Amino acid sequence: MAQKPSIPKGTRDFSPEQVFKRNYIFNIIKDSFERFGFQPIETPSFEKSETLMGKYGEEGDRLIFKILNSGDYFKDVRADIVDATIIHIAFIDLFETLIDKCNNNLKDYEGILDVKLNFFHLGEISEIESELLQDFFLGIKNDFITLFEENKDLSEEESKENIIKLRDNKFVSFFGIYMNEFDTLNSSKAIKKISEKALRYDLTVPFARYVVQHQNEIEFPFKRYQIQPVWRADRPQKGRFREFFQCDADVVGSKSLWQEVEFVQLYDTVFSNLGLNGVTIKINNRKILSGIAEVIGAKDKLIDFTVALDKLDKIGEEKVKEEMLGKGIPQEGINKLQPLFNLKGSFEEQIEELKSILSTSEEGVKGIEELEFIDKAINSLELKSAKLQLDVTLARGLNYYTGAIFEVSAPEGVSMGSIGGGGRYDDLTGIFGMKDVSGVGISFGLDRIYLVLEELGLFPKAAMKNTKVLFINFGDKEALFCLKAIKQLRESGIKAELYPDNAKMKKQMNYANKRKIPFVVLVGEEELNNDEFTLKNMATGEQEKLTLNSLISTVKK
Amino acid sequence: MAQKPSIPKGTRDFSPEQVFKRNYIFNIIKDSFERFGFQPIETPSFEKSETLMGKYGEEGDRLIFKILNSGDYFKDVRADIVDATIIHIAFIDLFETLIDKCNNNLKDYEGILDVKLNFFHLGEISEIESELLQDFFLGIKNDFITLFEENKDLSEEESKENIIKLRDNKFVSFFGIYMNEFDTLNSSKAIKKISEKALRYDLTVPFARYVVQHQNEIEFPFKRYQIQPVWRADRPQKGRFREFFQCDADVVGSKSLWQEVEFVQLYDTVFSNLGLNGVTIKINNRKILSGIAEVIGAKDKLIDFTVALDKLDKIGEEKVKEEMLGKGIPQEGINKLQPLFNLKGSFEEQIEELKSILSTSEEGVKGIEELEFIDKAINSLELKSAKLQLDVTLARGLNYYTGAIFEVSAPEGVSMGSIGGGGRYDDLTGIFGMKDVSGVGISFGLDRIYLVLEELGLFPKAAMKNTKVLFINFGDKEALFCLKAIKQLRESGIKAELYPDNAKMKKQMNYANKRKIPFVVLVGEEELNNDEFTLKNMATGEQEKLTLNSLISTVKK
Repeated sequence: MAQKPSIPKGTRDFSPEQVFKRNYIFNIIKDSFERFGFQPIETPSFEKSETLMGKYGEEGDRLIFKILNSGDYFKDVRADIVDATIIHIAFIDLFETLIDKCNNNLKDYEGILDVKLNFFHLGEISEIESELLQDFFLGIKNDFITLFEENKDLSEEESKENIIKLRDNKFVSFFGIYMNEFDTLNSSKAIKKISEKALRYDLTVPFARYVVQHQNEIEFPFKRYQIQPVWRADRPQKGRFREFFQCDADVVGSKSLWQEVEFVQLYDTVFSNLGLNGVTIKINNRKILSGIAEVIGAKDKLIDFTVALDKLDKIGEEKVKEEMLGKGIPQEGINKLQPLFNLKGSFEEQIEELKSILSTSEEGVKGIEELEFIDKAINSLELKSAKLQLDVTLARGLNYYTGAIFEVSAPEGVSMGSIGGGGRYDDLTGIFGMKDVSGVGISFGLDRIYLVLEELGLFPKAAMKNTKVLFINFGDKEALFCLKAIKQLRESGIKAELYPDNAKMKKQMNYANKRKIPFVVLVGEEELNNDEFTLKNMATGEQEKLTLNSLISTVKK
Repeated sequence: MAQKPSIPKGTRDFSPEQVFKRNYIFNIIKDSFERFGFQPIETPSFEKSETLMGKYGEEGDRLIFKILNSGDYFKDVRADIVDATIIHIAFIDLFETLIDKCNNNLKDYEGILDVKLNFFHLGEISEIESELLQDFFLGIKNDFITLFEENKDLSEEESKENIIKLRDNKFVSFFGIYMNEFDTLNSSKAIKKISEKALRYDLTVPFARYVVQHQNEIEFPFKRYQIQPVWRADRPQKGRFREFFQCDADVVGSKSLWQEVEFVQLYDTVFSNLGLNGVTIKINNRKILSGIAEVIGAKDKLIDFTVALDKLDKIGEEKVKEEMLGKGIPQEGINKLQPLFNLKGSFEEQIEELKSILSTSEEGVKGIEELEFIDKAINSLELKSAKLQLDVTLARGLNYYTGAIFEVSAPEGVSMGSIGGGGRYDDLTGIFGMKDVSGVGISFGLDRIYLVLEELGLFPKAAMKNTKVLFINFGDKEALFCLKAIKQLRESGIKAELYPDNAKMKKQMNYANKRKIPFVVLVGEEELNNDEFTLKNMATGEQEKLTLNSLISTVKK
């Protein structure tokens, strides 16, 4: 292999430094999850296709990575392909013969057509419903007879051209049938026959599957967290990957609003513990959005309405109004939205404003009550460093959420999309036949949090669990002496290593430098005889001779 | 969906208890790896197929999970399939016509054959090398002429039967060509066109790829560890899974034997820290095996020899000898093996015995020196709880290893295969074009270690990071009061949760019981007014009234 090997588009290798930093984030998230009473589960990387397919919409289905069946995966497709191609060939053959035998004699043509049509009675395509095909070929026969009669007076050459035109014409509709009806060379239809497993696309659907499958072993309400990779065949682009970790915490089996309260606290706890102060936890409620749509007479256009409203930050008030108008929301309704565009002030002030806007919508009023409950509880419990903010334009994953909607944005001044999000979904497990199980959950965007911590310099040095002491290797006798000491250091919890080869001093020191190992120990003949160690501080260059005990206590500091 | 959902064969869901226990093992392994100076890397779950294929032998290639290309993955295959099936149909059509027109007139037959053979000059199968096919059809023509001449005097009916026989006969060889030469419906040939990525099969090949790809960023010797899942399409059976974690530590870029010494120490450290005392670390050296093969005159039969020797434990001395004889190892050579079968005693005693057996083999002597170096160092450094044992029958992965070979077996009395293994391989990165980089490494068998710890009851209670205190929910006022206390508990590092609903007391207590939560806190009107908490110990049933501070200190104990 002449070329350097590489990895697939959209995937990443993680260097030791990156792994340490990622684990630093994971550990803080896990620790907080556990303090809040969430328990970890893990599910397989691939699920049965039927578990995943159809759960994420058409676009989602397309982005799911499918795994090829093992062994002779083509077995089932092969028979179908042969069948369908027999028909394909029959079609080509029919026109070949017609063109070939073109002597402007209708009787000849009819004879050929009848023989060819008979082909489909021979039982050779027994596995396919041939009715459709019979109709199609009979249609060709009729078209051909018409064509022939219309062109009676043409030369043989012209007649041939007409037949070719008819063929090319028919070929398009033939392929229409061929591709759609015969389940063969069509990628999306053949898939079921050559693949029955797929890599998970998110952690929510596998979680729902887990809950339904293990419902008899689970105590509800079930508070679970899950930190595992997911895979999406997205077009790779900056900051978007085909393999990435999701960190989810969800509760299923309770509709209590105290859970929403706790999730706000959980966000606050994790980001405070990461040293990322000043994040904004935006909250909204699906019922508020429904209520507004109801009030402005666009109840049936809830999706269009919220998709437009969601863009307020990006495109501004006027464009949002234009889009709504374009989607058929009446001007009169849009006028009623005006107070919404002017919504300002504290959580409580916005709530008061919403009360007057939504007074006529039962659902809207319910949404306001829920938001108020959460806000009051949080005010009383107090957040450490995050800010809770009402944002009525927040709509993410609307098809999905039925109550609270959360989204977290990085502290002001850091330009980054949302670093977390979540909400309540009233029928999580319904897709697997277990009805009326309400769920609510949040997730953390690891890759973006990593970038934010990096940008703000918030990774503590201690996150790098690098080797602390390198013992220089001056030969086997010294190396054995060093390994005895190293054993003691390691038992004291100090990360220590011996340079394995008796290489040039410079090379060994270079290794320590490049690896950013802060201490180096030198043991030559003198140290060996005196049972002592020369410790060099790589930052200051200072050296001192120490006993093993003082070496351990010095380095441990 | 009427049926309960399920997961693919050979995969597993992990419950909270299982995740906690697995993480307990992972954390001890990681911690030890890091104390020994190993640094973590992570590689993508899927690699380019070219990176993985051909690295694990034919059987391995078959067991690699392939990922289907996204989008119209069938595109490239489709054209080929159509081509190949044209030929298929041509074949069927040829015989159809021959049978149909069977009037015992050779001229007719020859005419038909010529017309049909012409078909392959029409450029319709331009994409395929048609030479092979031309030969094949010409062969049919000749066979047919012979057949016809031999059967001149037969009836038309009998002649037809003969043609059918010829067809069926030819069909078999036709399919031979068709399947092997035309790269189409053959699963293993089409694969390159519909899949270019595959799930990793182990961590060693991705590590080699990583080292070559990032060679300019890496300081050598490079001590890396990697703990990630791998996937194999093995037939699922008890204790064998299609997704499982590997835990590997390797060093590349140094031939120093001190690394072998450290790996013995590392095994000892991990198993001691897991409380799994008394494991046996078996060690051998490829050079010893080569030396023995040389001495008994079976140098060219090294694999056969070691495969047989490896079975000594299972099938006994006599059968091993029989197998060797069967593989063509001379009786005289096998006689020379006798001292090997009688090898007993300490590491040192076995070494002395080997010295006399292998004195004439340069390579064997080198192997003995290496083993002796490691043994002496380990004796001087002392192991905590493991035992280092020489085992000249140990051969695992012989094709792969070039020096030391390791295998760890569970303590006596526990019936379980090896729980770890490894060795030195002198050309790890050669497969990716980077020559002369020696590697040595070991791995830990997570699933088996789990089973052993479970069997011996060695998982400590503290590994279960379960919720410690459940606050019973008596209503919103009480719940808010409780959440204020819970916030303090969590900040003190105590895992605490509030039952989210104001459900019946019995239901809430039941939840605590089933979740094995050791403490329950009850806050009713009285406690609320007195700013105190009733703590119930679920094991003893004892209750006491406490202030928040004493609650925290009591529960934290």
